[in-house]
Amino acid sequence: MDERQFDSDEYIVIKALASPVQIIGLTRGDYTKPHHTENLDKNEVIVMQFTEKTSAIKIRGKAEIYTKHGVVNSGE
Amino acid sequence: MDERQFDSDEYIVIKALASPVQIIGLTRGDYTKPHHTENLDKNEVIVMQFTEKTSAIKIRGKAEIYTKHGVVNSGE
Amino acid sequence: MDERQFDSDEYIVIKALASPVQIIGLTRGDYTKPHHTENLDKNEVIVMQFTEKTSAIKIRGKAEIYTKHGVVNSGE
Amino acid sequence: MDERQFDSDEYIVIKALASPVQIIGLTRGDYTKPHHTENLDKNEVIVMQFTEKTSAIKIRGKAEIYTKHGVVNSGE
Amino acid sequence: MDERQFDSDEYIVIKALASPVQIIGLTRGDYTKPHHTENLDKNEVIVMQFTEKTSAIKIRGKAEIYTKHGVVNSGE
Amino acid sequence: MDERQFDSDEYIVIKALASPVQIIGLTRGDYTKPHHTENLDKNEVIVMQFTEKTSAIKIRGKAEIYTKHGVVNSGE
Amino acid sequence: MDERQFDSDEYIVIKALASPVQIIGLTRGDYTKPHHTENLDKNEVIVMQFTEKTSAIKIRGKAEIYTKHGVVNSGE
Amino acid sequence: MDERQFDSDEYIVIKALASPVQIIGLTRGDYTKPHHTENLDKNEVIVMQFTEKTSAIKIRGKAEIYTKHGVVNSGE
Amino acid sequence: MDERQFDSDEYIVIKALASPVQIIGLTRGDYTKPHHTENLDKNEVIVMQFTEKTSAIKIRGKAEIYTKHGVVNSGE
Amino acid sequence: MDERQFDSDEYIVIKALASPVQIIGLTRGDYTKPHHTENLDKNEVIVMQFTEKTSAIKIRGKAEIYTKHGVVNSGE
Amino acid sequence: MDERQFDSDEYIVIKALASPVQIIGLTRGDYTKPHHTENLDKNEVIVMQFTEKTSAIKIRGKAEIYTKHGVVNSGE
Amino acid sequence: MDERQFDSDEYIVIKALASPVQIIGLTRGDYTKPHHTENLDKNEVIVMQFTEKTSAIKIRGKAEIYTKHGVVNSGE
Repeated sequence: MDERQFDSDEYIVIKALASPVQIIGLTRGDYTKPHHTENLDKNEVIVMQFTEKTSAIKIRGKAEIYTKHGVVNSGE
Repeated sequence: MDERQFDSDEYIVIKALASPVQIIGLTRGDYTKPHHTENLDKNEVIVMQFTEKTSAIKIRGKAEIYTKHGVVNSGE
Repeated sequence: MDERQFDSDEYIVIKALASPVQIIGLTRGDYTKPHHTENLDKNEVIVMQFTEKTSAIKIRGKAEIYTKHGVVNSGE
Repeated sequence: MDERQFDSDEYIVIKALASPVQIIGLTRGDYTKPHHTENLDKNEVIVMQFTEKTSAIKIRGKAEIYTKHGVVNSGE
Repeated sequence: MDERQFDSDEYIVIKALASPVQIIGLTRGDYTKPHHTENLDKNEVIVMQFTEKTSAIKIRGKAEIYTKHGVVNSGE
Repeated sequence: MDERQFDSDEYIVIKALASPVQIIGLTRGDYTKPHHTENLDKNEVIVMQFTEKTSAIKIRGKAEIYTKHGVVNSGE
Repeated sequence: MDERQFDSDEYIVIKALASPVQIIGLTRGDYTKPHHTENLDKNEVIVMQFTEKTSAIKIRGKAEIYTKHGVVNSGE
Repeated sequence: MDERQFDSDEYIVIKALASPVQIIGLTRGDYTKPHHTENLDKNEVIVMQFTEKTSAIKIRGKAEIYTKHGVVNSGE
Repeated sequence: MDERQFDSDEYIVIKALASPVQIIGLTRGDYTKPHHTENLDKNEVIVMQFTEKTSAIKIRGKAEIYTKHGVVNSGE
Repeated sequence: MDERQFDSDEYIVIKALASPVQIIGLTRGDYTKPHHTENLDKNEVIVMQFTEKTSAIKIRGKAEIYTKHGVVNSGE
Repeated sequence: MDERQFDSDEYIVIKALASPVQIIGLTRGDYTKPHHTENLDKNEVIVMQFTEKTSAIKIRGKAEIYTKHGVVNSGE
Repeated sequence: MDERQFDSDEYIVIKALASPVQIIGLTRGDYTKPHHTENLDKNEVIVMQFTEKTSAIKIRGKAEIYTKHGVVNSGE
């Protein structure tokens, strides 16, 4: 792997409040497309970074999203 | 890919308050044009970075946009 | 593209309060001239960075502009 | 090992409140997949970093997760 | 273009309070001379950076200038 | 040893409240596995860094763990 | 131009309170001498940086000078 | 000695409250093992850094340990 | 000119309270000697940086000197 | 001397409250051993840095030790 | 001059309260010796940096010395 | 002189409260030994940096020592 690694101290925290919560990583490169979907069951938590692959993270389903701009709720 | 990666810790958070919300990535290069449109349904959330490809993000539809300058509402 | 990329964490947020709002990118290079005009309809929001191409951003029409020096209103 | 090391001062702390708690490291590379599962018994604590291998950490089971965005509880 | 790019996160914001406001970019190089004049009509706003070309910005006409030293009014 | 050293100012402090407390270093590399177990007797204290070898530290037994996210107690 | 560019985020703001105000750039090099005089009319404002050419700025005439050490008034 | 030096401004302070206090340096390298034991008599103080050799410091006996996470007491 | 440029964001501000005020730049090099004297008339202001040439600035005559350690008055 | 110099802004201050106070520098290298003992008489003060040679400083005798973690007293 | 320039933003301010005040620059090199004496008359002010030549500044005579540790008075 | 210069913004201030005060510079190198003694008479002040030569400064005699850890008095 020759690409320079993407260096960041940032991370977000997502807690699923219901099953399922879908966390979809979107690619950083020339084409923005989903490259991975991670499923969380109720009360599972994930701590995630942006990477050299992922520049956007989409959240579907009822969850709490902890970010540096505060806590945002997804889902109804 | 030979281009130097764009390194930033910044990200914004967008929560759709109605369906659909369109999030349009505009290119950084010589020509500023849309290169990707991401659709959010009501209550979906996206956490996004600027990238070496994207230097502007346009939001259409009813949404809350969390940024370092505060929370801005789009849509009516 | 051989030019060194312009690295900045700064961005501004513009919300259109009426249609249309014109956002005009002015070039950084030897000649300062408009290189792109982005139109916003009422209640659309754009989050923008300065780039290696753009060193000034001109706003025409009724809008709120969120910056590190506070919120400035354009238009009447 | 030729890869540039991933340099970060960040770490999170996880305390298991019941047995078992599963801590699943997800890979940073082209494919996001689990590469390691660490099991904690009740009242065990783990202090973890993101690495050049791991860009996401998933927590299953009843635990307290100490992060820079606050303390988040997983499990019921 | 071989010159090293001028890297700065600083920008100022200028709002025209009457027509016309002239914003005159002065060159950084061996000779300090105007290289560009941008005209703003009443209530137009411009967000500007210093560049490798521009090291001084002169404002003529009635305007509010938002800077890190506060807001300064030009014009009568 | 050709590997670039891992540079960090971070450290944690662990105080054993009962005997024994096991402090297990987990490897940073391709395989996450224990590479060292340090035993503390009651009232012994250890001050530890993450290293180029260790990216996770697991604590078993009754202890106080001083971290930048606060003090966490392991053991019953 | 082979000289390394002078990189600084600093700028000062000068507002003319009467006509004329003279702003005299003094050279950074081996000889300190005026290399440019910019004239401001009453109520004109200039936002200026130090450059690889200019290491001192002299103000003659009635003006307000906004700096990081506060606002200083020149002229009677 | 070809190894890159470990650069850190961090240090801890240890004060012995009884004799003897043992301060055991553990190695940073592939094998974590004691490489040095320093003995303190009652009321002696030591100010210590982590080094390219030492990534963990174990304290046995009654002492006050001053760290960036506060003061921790070892020994009964 | 082959010397590396002296990079600093620091500047001081001097306001003449009477005529004349002498501002004497002293050289940074092997010999400390005056290399330039700038004269200010009453109410003139100068904003000055240290340079690769100047490491000390001497002020004679009645003036206010704005520095990061506060405002100092010269002259009687 | 080919070794890279150890760069740090840190220093500690030690004041002897009785004679003698011994300040023992311990080596940073492969072997941790005393390489220098400095003696202070009552009311003498020493201001010390860690160096590329010294990574630990041991204080014997009655003294006040001023550090970034506060003032610690050695000796009875 | 091949020596790397000494880069620092620090400066001190000295105001003479009586005539004469002697400001003696001491050399940074292998031998610490006076290399320059600057004389100030009453009410003259000097703003000084440390340089690649000067690592200590001695003040004789009645003066106020403004430093980052506060204002210190020399002379009786 | 081929050695890399020691770069630091730190300095301390010493004021002699009686004659004589001895300020003894101790060497940074392999051997810690006095390399210079500066004498201060009563009410003289010295502002000093650590250098590539000096890593410790010993003060004998009645003086006030201004440091980032506060003001320490030497001498009885």
